[in-house]
Amino acid sequence: MRIAILLYDDMAALDAIGPFEVFRFGKDTEVVFTGKKTGEVRAGGNLGLVVDRPLAEVPSADVVLVPGGTGQVELMDDPEVHEWLREVDRTSSWTTSVCTGSLLLAAAGLLDGRKATSHWLALEHLSVYGAVPTEQRVVFDGKYVTAAGVSAGIDMALELTDRIAGDVAAQAIQLGIEYDPQPPHDAGSPAKAPADIVARMRENRRSFLRES
Amino acid sequence: MRIAILLYDDMAALDAIGPFEVFRFGKDTEVVFTGKKTGEVRAGGNLGLVVDRPLAEVPSADVVLVPGGTGQVELMDDPEVHEWLREVDRTSSWTTSVCTGSLLLAAAGLLDGRKATSHWLALEHLSVYGAVPTEQRVVFDGKYVTAAGVSAGIDMALELTDRIAGDVAAQAIQLGIEYDPQPPHDAGSPAKAPADIVARMRENRRSFLRES
Repeated sequence: MRIAILLYDDMAALDAIGPFEVFRFGKDTEVVFTGKKTGEVRAGGNLGLVVDRPLAEVPSADVVLVPGGTGQVELMDDPEVHEWLREVDRTSSWTTSVCTGSLLLAAAGLLDGRKATSHWLALEHLSVYGAVPTEQRVVFDGKYVTAAGVSAGIDMALELTDRIAGDVAAQAIQLGIEYDPQPPHDAGSPAKAPADIVARMRENRRSFLRES
Repeated sequence: MRIAILLYDDMAALDAIGPFEVFRFGKDTEVVFTGKKTGEVRAGGNLGLVVDRPLAEVPSADVVLVPGGTGQVELMDDPEVHEWLREVDRTSSWTTSVCTGSLLLAAAGLLDGRKATSHWLALEHLSVYGAVPTEQRVVFDGKYVTAAGVSAGIDMALELTDRIAGDVAAQAIQLGIEYDPQPPHDAGSPAKAPADIVARMRENRRSFLRES
């Protein structure tokens, strides 16, 4: 089982690392970190992550994972990334994304007419690229699996492990990473968070987070 | 607010990146990735993470975070790391760990007589180093905050944000990273997972994960 994870500047690190920490415990699994060129990228918040293989050296994978972030905007019309996504998708068993990574998949033409999700603040944008915005934490449509914002990649990877390797494997990995969430508030979705926080984030996510 | 996160070979990436993805949205917050030397470390599963500043250049921080993993074993009697932990702890507002990172804090003498937690498979080892093993997802004892295995760092960081910056900040960040967990199973703690999986992991965690 080979899993290719795309890395790029200004991605959200947790989008990639959440699923990575699940997938890496899969049986006979190799995870490859790929990107436009080898070496460091800087994830949002200024964390250096290392691309080990350029896109051209990773023409195929069983699972492809595209994280989101703010840097995804830069790649929305990048022909090299689009061509790679289409190439690797040709033989993948699962083509997946976390957060705004689904916008990249959609921009590359891979989600036409398909149900997909994204970060709640970006969900509606999916329709611009031909996908069908679907308000769920993890959306399966054929081999295309999209997760909601950032932390949703953990749930997506566990769900995918369940389908690929069965419930015992998924449960064992969940126990291994002790994923028994107990956040101090129940504010993880726009339906659950206080309405004024949702409204202010819709107005301006970045400045709101900085000010609060 | 300055947050120092220790990186080292064979750490569990999610231990550090979960809290990072929360802390980085804090008001006026700078996160510094530090380690024994600058440049790449390799997290478990073969992910390259970049140390930007050597320990000697990070003598103080408001929040110190020590992740766990398997590589923590190598550091259990590393004088440079112990001395740095004691130095940075002298002026920190919060000294924190995720997973087996608490064993490092304890080995450095910082958890003597204090309640602390760790990965469920390592919890009892805390008593060897003078700490009081406490079966909770996040344990506060004064300024010392320890989280259970791997993914528990996300909850710890949200809880700490709540205490440092208040509930609106914690809720806004939770909504920003869309932390509304919906794993396919309820198996994230030894009390909840099927007993045979818990038993087999207690026998041999690594080989069990590989085989299942």
